[in-house]
Amino acid sequence: MPQHRELTVGLIGAGRIGSNHAELLARAVPETLLAVVADPVEGAAARLATALGVERAATDLGGVLADPALDAVVITAPARFHAGLVEQAAAAGKAVFCEKPAGMDLEEIERVARAVEEHGTVFRVGFNRRFADGFPQARRAVDEGRLGIPQLLRSTTRDPGLADPAAVAPWTIFRETLIHDFDALNFLNPGARAVEVHAVADALVAPEHKDAGLLDTAVVTVRYDNGAIATAEASFSAAYGYDTRAEVFGSGGMATVGELAASSLRLYGPEGLSADTLRCDTQSMGRAYAAELRSFALAALGRPAGTGPEDPAEAPGVDAAREALRIALACIESCRTGAPVRLPASGAGR
Amino acid sequence: MPQHRELTVGLIGAGRIGSNHAELLARAVPETLLAVVADPVEGAAARLATALGVERAATDLGGVLADPALDAVVITAPARFHAGLVEQAAAAGKAVFCEKPAGMDLEEIERVARAVEEHGTVFRVGFNRRFADGFPQARRAVDEGRLGIPQLLRSTTRDPGLADPAAVAPWTIFRETLIHDFDALNFLNPGARAVEVHAVADALVAPEHKDAGLLDTAVVTVRYDNGAIATAEASFSAAYGYDTRAEVFGSGGMATVGELAASSLRLYGPEGLSADTLRCDTQSMGRAYAAELRSFALAALGRPAGTGPEDPAEAPGVDAAREALRIALACIESCRTGAPVRLPASGAGR
Amino acid sequence: MPQHRELTVGLIGAGRIGSNHAELLARAVPETLLAVVADPVEGAAARLATALGVERAATDLGGVLADPALDAVVITAPARFHAGLVEQAAAAGKAVFCEKPAGMDLEEIERVARAVEEHGTVFRVGFNRRFADGFPQARRAVDEGRLGIPQLLRSTTRDPGLADPAAVAPWTIFRETLIHDFDALNFLNPGARAVEVHAVADALVAPEHKDAGLLDTAVVTVRYDNGAIATAEASFSAAYGYDTRAEVFGSGGMATVGELAASSLRLYGPEGLSADTLRCDTQSMGRAYAAELRSFALAALGRPAGTGPEDPAEAPGVDAAREALRIALACIESCRTGAPVRLPASGAGR
Amino acid sequence: MPQHRELTVGLIGAGRIGSNHAELLARAVPETLLAVVADPVEGAAARLATALGVERAATDLGGVLADPALDAVVITAPARFHAGLVEQAAAAGKAVFCEKPAGMDLEEIERVARAVEEHGTVFRVGFNRRFADGFPQARRAVDEGRLGIPQLLRSTTRDPGLADPAAVAPWTIFRETLIHDFDALNFLNPGARAVEVHAVADALVAPEHKDAGLLDTAVVTVRYDNGAIATAEASFSAAYGYDTRAEVFGSGGMATVGELAASSLRLYGPEGLSADTLRCDTQSMGRAYAAELRSFALAALGRPAGTGPEDPAEAPGVDAAREALRIALACIESCRTGAPVRLPASGAGR
Repeated sequence: MPQHRELTVGLIGAGRIGSNHAELLARAVPETLLAVVADPVEGAAARLATALGVERAATDLGGVLADPALDAVVITAPARFHAGLVEQAAAAGKAVFCEKPAGMDLEEIERVARAVEEHGTVFRVGFNRRFADGFPQARRAVDEGRLGIPQLLRSTTRDPGLADPAAVAPWTIFRETLIHDFDALNFLNPGARAVEVHAVADALVAPEHKDAGLLDTAVVTVRYDNGAIATAEASFSAAYGYDTRAEVFGSGGMATVGELAASSLRLYGPEGLSADTLRCDTQSMGRAYAAELRSFALAALGRPAGTGPEDPAEAPGVDAAREALRIALACIESCRTGAPVRLPASGAGR
Repeated sequence: MPQHRELTVGLIGAGRIGSNHAELLARAVPETLLAVVADPVEGAAARLATALGVERAATDLGGVLADPALDAVVITAPARFHAGLVEQAAAAGKAVFCEKPAGMDLEEIERVARAVEEHGTVFRVGFNRRFADGFPQARRAVDEGRLGIPQLLRSTTRDPGLADPAAVAPWTIFRETLIHDFDALNFLNPGARAVEVHAVADALVAPEHKDAGLLDTAVVTVRYDNGAIATAEASFSAAYGYDTRAEVFGSGGMATVGELAASSLRLYGPEGLSADTLRCDTQSMGRAYAAELRSFALAALGRPAGTGPEDPAEAPGVDAAREALRIALACIESCRTGAPVRLPASGAGR
Repeated sequence: MPQHRELTVGLIGAGRIGSNHAELLARAVPETLLAVVADPVEGAAARLATALGVERAATDLGGVLADPALDAVVITAPARFHAGLVEQAAAAGKAVFCEKPAGMDLEEIERVARAVEEHGTVFRVGFNRRFADGFPQARRAVDEGRLGIPQLLRSTTRDPGLADPAAVAPWTIFRETLIHDFDALNFLNPGARAVEVHAVADALVAPEHKDAGLLDTAVVTVRYDNGAIATAEASFSAAYGYDTRAEVFGSGGMATVGELAASSLRLYGPEGLSADTLRCDTQSMGRAYAAELRSFALAALGRPAGTGPEDPAEAPGVDAAREALRIALACIESCRTGAPVRLPASGAGR
Repeated sequence: MPQHRELTVGLIGAGRIGSNHAELLARAVPETLLAVVADPVEGAAARLATALGVERAATDLGGVLADPALDAVVITAPARFHAGLVEQAAAAGKAVFCEKPAGMDLEEIERVARAVEEHGTVFRVGFNRRFADGFPQARRAVDEGRLGIPQLLRSTTRDPGLADPAAVAPWTIFRETLIHDFDALNFLNPGARAVEVHAVADALVAPEHKDAGLLDTAVVTVRYDNGAIATAEASFSAAYGYDTRAEVFGSGGMATVGELAASSLRLYGPEGLSADTLRCDTQSMGRAYAAELRSFALAALGRPAGTGPEDPAEAPGVDAAREALRIALACIESCRTGAPVRLPASGAGR
């Protein structure tokens, strides 16, 4: 555990989550040296680099991906560029951490899968729940058989607000939000695969954008091949902050995870009991983000992760990316048809 | 509030819930005098009457229903007899409390509705959640606008065990178990009506009875005409006891209700934190059962209920019985077809 | 368990707690018939009797205590009359439930003890914590050895408000408020006896009454002969309501009891998490009050109490009354001297 | 916020807490470069340095303290050496972080105070509660007046185990354990000073070491000049792990802080509810330790700390060290005399 930073990293995409990940790479992951931040938007990378003391900013993504000084690349660009960037980075021999989703459709995922396999890439997708407080512990309880056979599962994601409804790409709620829940459900029901999906979605937060295709609220039912029935549920606007909880109910018991309170402080006054709640993902998921990046860094360095939250039962790679996306795509189809959608028993790439 | 018992009551059906209700009428509802217990099964009523100090036991239900000494009847017979018994009791001028469901199909419910209307019957159906810890308070929060417009709801019922899978009548999980959740969802989404239902169900607890038609696990999605999307979920076998929770999420906030711990005791030892959980409905719902019976008694006596849990925002009568059953019946159809079921915009009787 | 009320009871003292107990005897204890309410204050008993449908009201306490129609007496008069009333009731052959304290000093307690012994009186003192949510369960955990040997204990009583500071009799905080905590500590440290007491008290709620002798805030340290060190703490004015919690820490673990929330409802909104709190003892202790009265009634009827909260590990009789009062009296002395007070190894009456 | 480590630090004392702090300096505080680890015990520093990738290990403390390459020193040596080491480090112009206590008696504290003042030293003492989850938030609630005037306070420290009772120096429980609680109480009752202390202590965990002077369990009552009465309580052996909770009760409400559960996971099974508990200070206080070291580093770099937990309402310096020690020393006297001890209205150095 040397103090010098061993893994030289470039980050692609200086937006909101990119800025968050850049700061964590610079400050909270002791193994990584963030050497360059890149973003095609003029000035975005430069501002972030300056703020974090990163040496280099770039607008030329290709140059960064090919830079031989970099050991690894963290991709936080918009989702539609993910698969292509992963392919390039893998081809350049980099270890790759890619924010979710790893691709927009199964074809993209298969391109990612082939690139990763061909180049022996250390690859991780940003399914942060696997590293979030309580989730690895719940999985361990499942693995130890303390819950018996999973029968009912639930995962929820509620974001604190919807800044710009007009900017939300179609099907974002499934492909970019609920995909976390689909992965959480898959993670908490290990070895099982989704066989049927039914989705209901609407624009309840910003109904005036419904005609433009906005879906900001959704409930999904997923049936698994081990019999388990799961619910995933999302809203783009929770008045009380950021809400990511999950529940696994099995033949032997139940596990619940997810904390809404911001700290252990509880206030009691004339109005009764009160407490602050977690307000945003970077607050709620701060440790999970740091842990998933550190887990990636350790894997890229070829080092065993140990037993902390950096080492979940199962780090999310291509298979996890594919399995979650399969469910998201089935949701889109279910919304279109208004009917449940059967999933093929095995994925194309399995 | 005189100490003498003012409302003379007869109870029909000396099974498990009948015994529970009889004990509450005798011991926990100060206004009621339980004068007779009736059950066609030889000896059942007699045993219960003796145990509770009830003066009279009967096997002839008709005689009891016609008994002019009785002011009110509490019906805890098997569900398939409910509607007929309600009709007889109403015709005899009794106030009627009937365990859920009030009927097996909409036709039965309409017969009940007609009888109640024709005879001006004080009628209540046993939707105990409306009287259970936290539920009336959650409804009040909704009524006060503290949650904004309901968008996502959830209700769950998990029973502690499945004694005799072979004895479970078809569709029981919808018509007798989840009907509580459908009513809870309706109660927590006041003024809204279900417009679409999708149900998924299976025999996960006792799969060997699946071929015989057993369904012991179910997840239901309900869409309401105010846009809200609700999930109801049930299992016949929770290892940790009796679990009835609910959640309402709206544009202004969220309410959660339902306690799993049996008392405020928390133990901390070498194994960590532990606490006992509620083990059965009569323990968990004891106060709710007493409150719904007392609320009924006060209504039958023509007295305002006051502001305690005996007086929920809205006591469950024929409309509540019909609205919950509509959803249950749509679940049955959804299971049969494997597709979502649209509900007519208004019920036959509205 | 006959429905007719078997134990005919008279209640002495129609003040706040007397009204509460009268209502419970009339409505929530199925075995008791509250036949008479007595209070020397003109009209007080009559008003209460009318409100509850009690047949008779009286101002002549002696006549009530001697009334052969009464099986039992519940004493809710001011504390300074307790011992004398118990003596009279015992001499008249009644079973006696007496609100705490059973006497103002040890001499009074010994008079009570002698009367109870001489007449074979069924006697209970109103230490409600023994019947309150979580407390009997905590005691059971101690009895089962799950906490090992008690080493540190804590009990707290915080009342919601101080209506009339000028009306508070001297040393009330020890003799009438903290006496509940002393009994709770004794109950949770079974078999051990207090050997040293140190008390600190002040008028922090109503400092303008300090010169008149008011003490409204106190912290007491009690050492027990098994080594355990306990803290009891009280305030007459908690902004958030009624707060009665306890904690037992032993060589094997810890138990905490006491709930502050009024129901299982939790609200999450723009301000964060909130919940209502319990506002008064009759709300918080409602079930405990009913349970202690029912336990008394069953004992008076010579019937085993069963296993509910009506049957704590150890119902509070003369010994409990004496042991708690010994600590209260030592507190008074400690406040006077400013020094810890040693207690004699055994009480006068033991 | 440059990525290179700006503050070059030496650490003195490679024991348990020294190893913990060294790892945090190397891994979790982005601003610090841990350049040297020193310990007079042969091999101790070398082992730690190797494990952490620290360049230099030393046994000569004096050389390290005088090393011009170091900007700052972190002192984690045994308590009896603290004051002398702080003096030397301050004289050498280093910023100094010193584990608690900063001195063994008031004379040592005054030597520290003089050195810090004379050399303009950036000085911090390791009172981690000020940085622990919920504590700064509770202080903020006090500062904002949400609790009114503090009246009753409580702080508890229970360590998970007592490895070697024979190695515990006399009065450790006051000077090294409860000193955290005294500081927490001072922190949560800002502006107030202790005026009277009463301590009760015993060897309940390892009674066989009592004759050798061991005290492993203690309860302390502290009166403050604003009227508040506080309790501090400690045990060296909690079966369930590491327990550091606090409570502030004031005229306007109450705040409670301190979490015992290890994560948000709750398991429900046949035995009821269960959860893991926090097992050791480095787990429970991990973030607080990192935050206090980072806060120190930022102060040493002359940089404002911001608004995170690294920036409590009031960072602990010489005054905090003195105020907490005053109480600890009064406890020792109270134990010796068996009586409460008055504190002078103002400290020698104020």
